[in-house]
Amino acid sequence: MAYRNLAKKNARFLGPTAPRKRFIQNPIESTQHNLDTFNSEKNTGRFHVLTDANENNELKKYETDIKGRFDRIIPFLKRISSLQYQQDFVEKAKQLTLSELSLELPDHLIDKAWVRPLDMRALFAWFVFQTHNQTSKEFFNLDPLNGNKDTTKALEFESFLESCGFHLLDLTPCADGRLAHSVAYALRIPFSSVRRRSHAGALFDIERTVNRWVKTEHRRYREGLPNSANSSTRYLKVVTYHFSSVAPSSQGCAAHGSDDSVAAAAGLKRLLEFRQTVENSFCCGASVELLLIGLDTDTDSIRIHVPSSDSNMVLDKWISTLDIYEETYSFSKDIALKTINQRIEESAPGKADLGMIKFISRLIVNNISQIDYVRQLHNGPYPDAGHAERFIGVGIGFKEVHLRNLTYFSHLDTVEEGAPDLDVGIKIFKGLNVSRDLPIPIVVRFDYSGKVPGAKERAISDCKRVNEAISYRYRDLVEEGLLHTFLTIRDRDQPTPAQVVGSSLDPDSQEVH
Amino acid sequence: MAYRNLAKKNARFLGPTAPRKRFIQNPIESTQHNLDTFNSEKNTGRFHVLTDANENNELKKYETDIKGRFDRIIPFLKRISSLQYQQDFVEKAKQLTLSELSLELPDHLIDKAWVRPLDMRALFAWFVFQTHNQTSKEFFNLDPLNGNKDTTKALEFESFLESCGFHLLDLTPCADGRLAHSVAYALRIPFSSVRRRSHAGALFDIERTVNRWVKTEHRRYREGLPNSANSSTRYLKVVTYHFSSVAPSSQGCAAHGSDDSVAAAAGLKRLLEFRQTVENSFCCGASVELLLIGLDTDTDSIRIHVPSSDSNMVLDKWISTLDIYEETYSFSKDIALKTINQRIEESAPGKADLGMIKFISRLIVNNISQIDYVRQLHNGPYPDAGHAERFIGVGIGFKEVHLRNLTYFSHLDTVEEGAPDLDVGIKIFKGLNVSRDLPIPIVVRFDYSGKVPGAKERAISDCKRVNEAISYRYRDLVEEGLLHTFLTIRDRDQPTPAQVVGSSLDPDSQEVH
Repeated sequence: MAYRNLAKKNARFLGPTAPRKRFIQNPIESTQHNLDTFNSEKNTGRFHVLTDANENNELKKYETDIKGRFDRIIPFLKRISSLQYQQDFVEKAKQLTLSELSLELPDHLIDKAWVRPLDMRALFAWFVFQTHNQTSKEFFNLDPLNGNKDTTKALEFESFLESCGFHLLDLTPCADGRLAHSVAYALRIPFSSVRRRSHAGALFDIERTVNRWVKTEHRRYREGLPNSANSSTRYLKVVTYHFSSVAPSSQGCAAHGSDDSVAAAAGLKRLLEFRQTVENSFCCGASVELLLIGLDTDTDSIRIHVPSSDSNMVLDKWISTLDIYEETYSFSKDIALKTINQRIEESAPGKADLGMIKFISRLIVNNISQIDYVRQLHNGPYPDAGHAERFIGVGIGFKEVHLRNLTYFSHLDTVEEGAPDLDVGIKIFKGLNVSRDLPIPIVVRFDYSGKVPGAKERAISDCKRVNEAISYRYRDLVEEGLLHTFLTIRDRDQPTPAQVVGSSLDPDSQEVH
Repeated sequence: MAYRNLAKKNARFLGPTAPRKRFIQNPIESTQHNLDTFNSEKNTGRFHVLTDANENNELKKYETDIKGRFDRIIPFLKRISSLQYQQDFVEKAKQLTLSELSLELPDHLIDKAWVRPLDMRALFAWFVFQTHNQTSKEFFNLDPLNGNKDTTKALEFESFLESCGFHLLDLTPCADGRLAHSVAYALRIPFSSVRRRSHAGALFDIERTVNRWVKTEHRRYREGLPNSANSSTRYLKVVTYHFSSVAPSSQGCAAHGSDDSVAAAAGLKRLLEFRQTVENSFCCGASVELLLIGLDTDTDSIRIHVPSSDSNMVLDKWISTLDIYEETYSFSKDIALKTINQRIEESAPGKADLGMIKFISRLIVNNISQIDYVRQLHNGPYPDAGHAERFIGVGIGFKEVHLRNLTYFSHLDTVEEGAPDLDVGIKIFKGLNVSRDLPIPIVVRFDYSGKVPGAKERAISDCKRVNEAISYRYRDLVEEGLLHTFLTIRDRDQPTPAQVVGSSLDPDSQEVH
């Protein structure tokens, strides 16, 4: 229900809203002030004193591994295509797929190659889905980002969060794939320690967020978890809007016409409305803390609109981690940390709360690592300044997706309500895939609670209902084989992988074409 | 989301599920045991000793007044139709409408009568909507059922409820219009003291009900309302399924193939799943109380499946108010009440809880008045054994609708999820209205909280979104002018009437045709 305003602003979606991947040939020539950090004199393998180089290496390994698997799909399919008229094609294709990609290619997608050309669109979608499924399984089985709820990292972060005066961290980044790594990379927060709900334009649903707030408070009263309702901690709601330092007027937020001041203002307005809703609807001093963050999708640096202790935030006043990075680059650790705290205090429009300063300080330190991460990996800002997502994720869940430009999110219960978000995703993928004659891969996910009788069956029905609504809304694409779906559910009470419950590529669904 | 099972049971909806109004010519000849109560010897104006004759008179006045207004529409339209070729038609029609129905007929629906025949379908829908709007306004302004939250009646009932060990009464009758009066008439509960959510087959949505439970408990913890979380009271969830004693195999519940044992079993299953969900999802002895009631839509008598103190209910064991009525008809008040308590205890499959006995006893006494009400008003069972609803109510709200066969309810947030319920309603109205060349009038309602910033605008958007989804799903009917909509919102925090925010009969919408 958060998209109503977006839905009304049709004009917004008609602008230059879904630019395709855009490779910067020569970032060094850029005159943008924000890119100075990446200039050659600093790019000598040295890091900022606060950068966690080990963690950067781990994250790099994970990102290049997973994205590499998606990037192998097209070259691999070209090889398969070249083999399709050979007599032993079916066996060869299956064997190659198994040996090179560890995937079992099903007969029904290839066994008609002798009589008609392979449906490469279907095969492409199949490989995207299987690659997602493979990496998703590994995520839940192996915890490659070391962010599971029982890890030292998660436990430490949760106790840190509480020490800052917060008992829940609830983050809404934009649905844009260039923010899909906000939690695990840009902000370096253990994924299990944060509630993430991505929405186009970062415009989260107020009613649903109030429901989450009520559930959180009820648990504190009933179970004393994560802490007792008597503790004076607060629910912290964060909005992350985004902008592009490389191409500010074309590669910013689609939902806000690539205008970062509009994006920031809309995010702040939604945050304030959420707080007012809680304050007006519940007695006894009920309230929430708010935080507004902007993310530069080219450098992953952030700007934080530091709130004063009376929760005042100013749209054109922020602290920039890129500025901090530059200022403290040659400092000692201690002095760098002190400077950060000082800059946070100075940046607030009034006296800032100590817990909030502590929390923001942690985010800034974490983000400094990420600035170095991007710089080292790409020898400058990201080469893919625009969209380069691999699939659209629709539904409720996707706890395992934490890579930039991997997934465009469309968190929704129904297509009827979530259509404006989903439409943006489809538009992006028309540019990315359909323009290259490739289909739009949509993974549908509904998490459920295994403790609730019937919840699993309802999650399956939800997948099917949403799948049907998608097939109907984008029927032209579906009929052309230019949109495929992959239905998955997951028990959120277990640390186990998702379960596949259907796909437009199943033999039955394929018969329809 | 409660309809998934229904949605799968397509076959159920294809049966004799939506029989039209069926007038019983000679109820006295009926051989049904249940109808003995209505035989001539007892039908002499005498009432059961526990019957509240004054209340019956008030309720009768209200029902005949409101239904009378709807019943006047067709005769009135016939008169209007006969005048349409007269030269002063527009003035005459407007004047007649004002003087006879106190409604202001807008020009755009009649001013083309000189050039083409009146759109009687549009006029019919307009009169239904305006009559609803008129009676709805009166309801909120005048409280004709004396059930507002500050009335002595409501306050007394709420304190009675708490004395029985319950802090919230949450009732799900079937969406069928023949149960729309369950609260105010059949069970005689002040409408403000109960949460009502009607669903086809009485199959309420478990997740949403758990949300309501959490909100209720949270309020007890935070505000001590309606009582403190320390009090050992429970949330009482009631399901009311229905059956027909006159025509059991054709006039029962459409969603359950007119099989009362299936309807009862489905209701019980849903109740037990709800309880298990609460028990499994929350710690510290969290649970709810459950109650299963069957309503005979011909006599309004009820059967209650009395639970034992360990919450055991048996499907084929119940206490029937019609039996009680007969048994205690000639008793003194005291003896009648004692007998009722005794029968309740005997009917439970184990020792029953004292609070539950007290609550059920009140329901039985209340229902005895209703048995006499029906008997007196119709000289036997209801003449309209089948469906005879006047409009479909879609959305969230309708606190003011409390008359039998006035409204088919479709409580939903989205048509995407609520479609199975709505489809049943459309099927019913195809029989009732479309078969007579009259349109299906749908009133869309979204209640909102005026305390929540932006909630009103979101309620308006919800109305429009649902209206669009309806227009799309039933576009054949819409194109023929056989389905009209009327969009309304209401601030649930205020005792004020609903506000009209649009209609397919507005001049703009009409231009489309």
